[in-house]
Amino acid sequence: MTKVEVLFFDVLGTVVDWRGSIATEARSFLKRHDASHIDAGAFADAWVGRYDESVEAVRCEQRSFVPLDLLNMENLEACLKGFGLTPSALPRAELENLNLAWHRLKPWPDSVEGLSRLKARFIVAPLSDGNTRLLVNMAKHAGLPWDTILGADVSRAYKPMPQVYLRACELLGVTPDRAMLVAAHDYDLEAARRCGLKTAYVVRENAQDPSKAANVRPHDGWEYMASDLIELAEVLK
Amino acid sequence: MTKVEVLFFDVLGTVVDWRGSIATEARSFLKRHDASHIDAGAFADAWVGRYDESVEAVRCEQRSFVPLDLLNMENLEACLKGFGLTPSALPRAELENLNLAWHRLKPWPDSVEGLSRLKARFIVAPLSDGNTRLLVNMAKHAGLPWDTILGADVSRAYKPMPQVYLRACELLGVTPDRAMLVAAHDYDLEAARRCGLKTAYVVRENAQDPSKAANVRPHDGWEYMASDLIELAEVLK
Repeated sequence: MTKVEVLFFDVLGTVVDWRGSIATEARSFLKRHDASHIDAGAFADAWVGRYDESVEAVRCEQRSFVPLDLLNMENLEACLKGFGLTPSALPRAELENLNLAWHRLKPWPDSVEGLSRLKARFIVAPLSDGNTRLLVNMAKHAGLPWDTILGADVSRAYKPMPQVYLRACELLGVTPDRAMLVAAHDYDLEAARRCGLKTAYVVRENAQDPSKAANVRPHDGWEYMASDLIELAEVLK
Repeated sequence: MTKVEVLFFDVLGTVVDWRGSIATEARSFLKRHDASHIDAGAFADAWVGRYDESVEAVRCEQRSFVPLDLLNMENLEACLKGFGLTPSALPRAELENLNLAWHRLKPWPDSVEGLSRLKARFIVAPLSDGNTRLLVNMAKHAGLPWDTILGADVSRAYKPMPQVYLRACELLGVTPDRAMLVAAHDYDLEAARRCGLKTAYVVRENAQDPSKAANVRPHDGWEYMASDLIELAEVLK
């Protein structure tokens, strides 16, 4: 087996608990704005649930690339309207702060330690739909020890577009077979494999995008499989 | 003064001692290949001295972008010939290893501590002619605690081309006046200023590219000035 030098990680769902983190911040936001009757979990699901459709417009080139921060804000406003709230009636700074919840997503309990162990033997880098600044802020906030951070705005493309994986390999100076994608999502691993990368599946309960719930398939056929990033570090020893 | 969020650093000469590090590795290489009669310091000067001319071809679009690793190898071969050695007569793996001396450049004594202090209050990132993998390897080798690493291959341009500075600001999500370049070279600071970035000059003896020795001018007019990165962290408190 060709020696793997670089581990790329899906971030949203695989390294951080996006839905749980967003529900926590949404709960506080809804309370401050007299909207405690709205369930924060349902609100987070509705907001995150709009993610795939908005990114899809860029994927199929109906829309030129815009960073995830902007898509998230558009989706937040649509989501608020869906729950009967009027975005323009809320303080702009409050909306912007809630949108920055994506910069403060909490890591799963094993993520920092697992990444630290893996960093001793591999280059570790996110391969995420997040823009670079979002991922940099998240790393500083959560203590994620990345070797470098290349957001979707570097390749100006969203997963599973092949240029995302291929440009990341080019910048890290490896042929695809010397890189591996670590992810909790099949569609991402499938795209990485088509580009020639190796694949490792990490089991994350509750990491599914609710808009894709119907697409969950059995997780097999990947080079490696682990229940979390600490176990992955053991498996790759 | 607008709040600065991001500190970009010139690396070669400002954060690491390129000429000293290369001389050390060249000395060992020349000894192994029965060429101890060649002065390692002069060899390093000759190799580094070809840097500016080779990058200039990309700057003025006589040549399309190629990463620094490739330019360094071309310059190494030319430099060996200049000293009467025949590159093709030397083991290829040895040449490649010597070229990777650029991935192992040693930081100045204050660099790791200074960057660590600055990282607590700013996003810290290199802004270097080095390619991303070169800078990632250097950071892992030397323990440089960058928040992210965006090499010249991200913008596919070399300093002082304006797109280098502007693309870096765009990816870090700041307008240029919220970023500052820290460098030991005037031409770099001048270009950053023209793009709207703030500037900090760090005094580094022996950091001049020998090919530019005639261009050294008085260092004044920059927003900040410090004798090393630890002092800079104090100045920016």
